Amino acid sequence: MSEFELIQRYFSDRQSPAAHIPLSIGDDCALMSVSSGMQLAVSTDALVEGRHFFAGADARTLGHKSLAVNLSDLAAMGATPRAFTLALTLPDVREEWLANFSAGLFDLAAQFDCQLIGGDTTRGPLNICITVLGEIPDGLAHRRDAARPGDDIWISGSLGDARLALCCYLNQQTLSAADLELSSIRLHAPTPRVALGLALRGVARAAIDLSDGLSGDLAHILKRSKCGATVWCDALPIGAVLSQQSKSMQREFALVGGDDYELCFTAPCARRNDVLEAGRLTNTPVTRVGVIEAEPGCRYVDVDNKLLSLSLNSFDHFQ
Amino acid sequence: MSEFELIQRYFSDRQSPAAHIPLSIGDDCALMSVSSGMQLAVSTDALVEGRHFFAGADARTLGHKSLAVNLSDLAAMGATPRAFTLALTLPDVREEWLANFSAGLFDLAAQFDCQLIGGDTTRGPLNICITVLGEIPDGLAHRRDAARPGDDIWISGSLGDARLALCCYLNQQTLSAADLELSSIRLHAPTPRVALGLALRGVARAAIDLSDGLSGDLAHILKRSKCGATVWCDALPIGAVLSQQSKSMQREFALVGGDDYELCFTAPCARRNDVLEAGRLTNTPVTRVGVIEAEPGCRYVDVDNKLLSLSLNSFDHFQ
Repeated sequence: MSEFELIQRYFSDRQSPAAHIPLSIGDDCALMSVSSGMQLAVSTDALVEGRHFFAGADARTLGHKSLAVNLSDLAAMGATPRAFTLALTLPDVREEWLANFSAGLFDLAAQFDCQLIGGDTTRGPLNICITVLGEIPDGLAHRRDAARPGDDIWISGSLGDARLALCCYLNQQTLSAADLELSSIRLHAPTPRVALGLALRGVARAAIDLSDGLSGDLAHILKRSKCGATVWCDALPIGAVLSQQSKSMQREFALVGGDDYELCFTAPCARRNDVLEAGRLTNTPVTRVGVIEAEPGCRYVDVDNKLLSLSLNSFDHFQ
Repeated sequence: MSEFELIQRYFSDRQSPAAHIPLSIGDDCALMSVSSGMQLAVSTDALVEGRHFFAGADARTLGHKSLAVNLSDLAAMGATPRAFTLALTLPDVREEWLANFSAGLFDLAAQFDCQLIGGDTTRGPLNICITVLGEIPDGLAHRRDAARPGDDIWISGSLGDARLALCCYLNQQTLSAADLELSSIRLHAPTPRVALGLALRGVARAAIDLSDGLSGDLAHILKRSKCGATVWCDALPIGAVLSQQSKSMQREFALVGGDDYELCFTAPCARRNDVLEAGRLTNTPVTRVGVIEAEPGCRYVDVDNKLLSLSLNSFDHFQ
């Protein structure tokens, strides 16, 4: 199968034309219309074998996850997904792998009406690079630098199950088959919180998607917003499987677990009911876990408001 | 050095803010404004070690080429470069490599006022994935499906020197040191024909950038435009170094050499003077090399209009 047949069979022929994409796959560039009064939101994430997923990972879940982690970035900004490009570097052409990968990819893309508009296929060590494009009304993006002292800190969904599943695959933990299956869904098939991100437009101030663990990701908001925070560790929403583990593991995985793809966002306390309403409307649990403060640094406290001394290291690809 | 320090030192701190980028590197997404009446042009190309460049390739030229091949896609459409994202997968952090790579990248980016607005760094086999974003007035893009019978076929610059240099590196050819240096520039540091692409707005009909060789790339235009062509082989602009080689090698490398990053475009013959003027204004040689015809297929003829029987295979990553 040639490169062009491959692209056609598994990628270009799988979509119907979209009004906002006057020119899609098959030219030097794709063309996209951006509505008046809207800004373009752009994010790029690559997934690398052995780093973001195990060698031999299931192709269908890989297709899902590659797009999901990118849509999660749009969700954090509050942007509507519009289109994406895919640069796929493959060691060889296995049709079964491609059929499954593209099925996982397009199932998720269709859910969010997000069109594949171009990309690239090359031979080499497996690497999946996606750039997503979304739209957001001027001035409404949830930027990391927008948190203000007094804001509530909120988390969508729950934390830590993805990390627990990972530890199980690495033989660092043991889980029942049912628990491993449940937590693996969180690791392999995260749900990008796009609907919540949209519902929070005009309600949330700052937001970030949790890919490297809450402590490190929240620190990005604090640094850019030039403020600090107190986080109530016992209020953190713990994943269903992780909640059966020890308290210390719950705290550790919730704070530095990584791969959660939940949203952490801040909102003025006057908007508390609006945040809860956004969660209800989008069927997304939202939990208040702390408060933004003027004093720099992040303080982790227990249910009695006692300062906890935690050693937290967020994930870093180069350390 | 951490991932964040790396990004800051070699990438985010190297640019001044740009008016059309309200939010750049360092958030979940970048935000970009698209002017009213303009469409967004989007293209993604990955460069993979051992496939697009040799292991141990000079980092500075690699930085240049990674962006150049993407800008070349914008050039073909006639789009103005505005921004790009970079997903960099690196086997390790070598500061010297990063300093050189980013120097090559930003030197070219600055020439075209094209801002790095985001991306990703990961550890893994070397892979450089760039997505470029440009702007083009509604309806003015040079699409592959826009060629019409009677159109002239034009080529910018010259063809084949990049392939000759590659053959030399593969020990299939011998060149003098001076000739290798000259042809290597074409292989390693192509000049994206952005200025010409812009000057051809409203003049050219179809266009494509020549990355896989003229015969295969022109075939894309013919297929999408549902027409055929005659190409005058002896009129092809041959690279300065290649022109010292045999006639048959000249033809072969000009037609299937690859890595030329010149533009092949069509224009109505009534616009011949406008094409020449666009070439003059942008200091880019333009050469008329054939004509679009209603009859399907591509006919290669010599200076006596005699049909040549050529066996042509364009580059394909999976064959």
